[in-house]
Amino acid sequence: MYPSSLQKLIESFRLLPGVGEKTAERYALAVSEMDPEKVRVFADSLAGVKTTLRRCSICGNLSDHEECEICRNPDRSHKLIFVVQSPKDVIAMEKTGEYRGVYHVLNGVISPSKGVMPEDLDIDQLVARAKDAEEVILATSNTMDGETTAMYLDRLLKEQCPGVLVTRIAHGLPAGGLLDYADEMTLAYALSNRRSMQ
Amino acid sequence: MYPSSLQKLIESFRLLPGVGEKTAERYALAVSEMDPEKVRVFADSLAGVKTTLRRCSICGNLSDHEECEICRNPDRSHKLIFVVQSPKDVIAMEKTGEYRGVYHVLNGVISPSKGVMPEDLDIDQLVARAKDAEEVILATSNTMDGETTAMYLDRLLKEQCPGVLVTRIAHGLPAGGLLDYADEMTLAYALSNRRSMQ
Repeated sequence: MYPSSLQKLIESFRLLPGVGEKTAERYALAVSEMDPEKVRVFADSLAGVKTTLRRCSICGNLSDHEECEICRNPDRSHKLIFVVQSPKDVIAMEKTGEYRGVYHVLNGVISPSKGVMPEDLDIDQLVARAKDAEEVILATSNTMDGETTAMYLDRLLKEQCPGVLVTRIAHGLPAGGLLDYADEMTLAYALSNRRSMQ
Repeated sequence: MYPSSLQKLIESFRLLPGVGEKTAERYALAVSEMDPEKVRVFADSLAGVKTTLRRCSICGNLSDHEECEICRNPDRSHKLIFVVQSPKDVIAMEKTGEYRGVYHVLNGVISPSKGVMPEDLDIDQLVARAKDAEEVILATSNTMDGETTAMYLDRLLKEQCPGVLVTRIAHGLPAGGLLDYADEMTLAYALSNRRSMQ
């Protein structure tokens, strides 16, 4: 139906998450109307992500260098390790501007149902790093697999790195969250994790 | 926040229609996890659209060649011209598999409010082609601007190409359309364009 050059581009767009036939067609037609220079930059940046982007050799975060900017930053506390599932979580946390420590990207969570076992994650490296740390903050998702992973890591770290403080990020009502809009799980967490008023 | 290679790709994805920051981030991260060969094909197809894709010199449809496959097809009736606003409309019509004539892409509709005048559209070429045609089917949208364009073309074609039959595609209830779900405009059209039962 489409000229083959356009058809190829539609098929490439379809590889993106959540992009169906109609959306891919719309994107490809938009590209066909774009400024040629912008399309060249687009093509180069696609190739660039594959040639220069890699995982930081220390924390597993995405980086254009052997070690990521956070790990190379001497102003950040390298004694404080924030453990997350994926590089996206690092970005989300960095956007808050509230955290001054470093990260560790596990690259997933333990999920027996999906066949993901502890040895599939970057846990050995976390344990090695935790030996020099003061605190490890477990920030895996508040899901069954995320909680399982947090419990597993808590036990492992307390065993292998006895001096380190292992904490879990707080769960409860979101900022601006109205009580009657919260789901039951969130409410139950918010209740059981209540703290005394200052 | 992101490594610069990823940031550049996010900015390119943001140029696509309806893609905001979050979606662009999701697409770029997906690319970072894609098979390198697929990313290479993606980059090549982006460049390919700009180097090989052009407008058919006869009908204005998108094509990888000087003349599009429809215009070059001797099995199609070149005496029947289906007039549309954009290449997308050609695809939509071709998908029905019902039409065996050729097309003419106007590249827009007359829209005084947006400053689009008849001379901004590929109308001269349509008139030239219509001189050899038997029927010109006007298929601009059923909107104010689309109707204005259809009326303008009808008058122009009758004046310049007296022998040609000028028709307008039908408007009415869509296939499977329930009466009580139809908007008033559609219902009014369906009523005024009613035809006698066979």
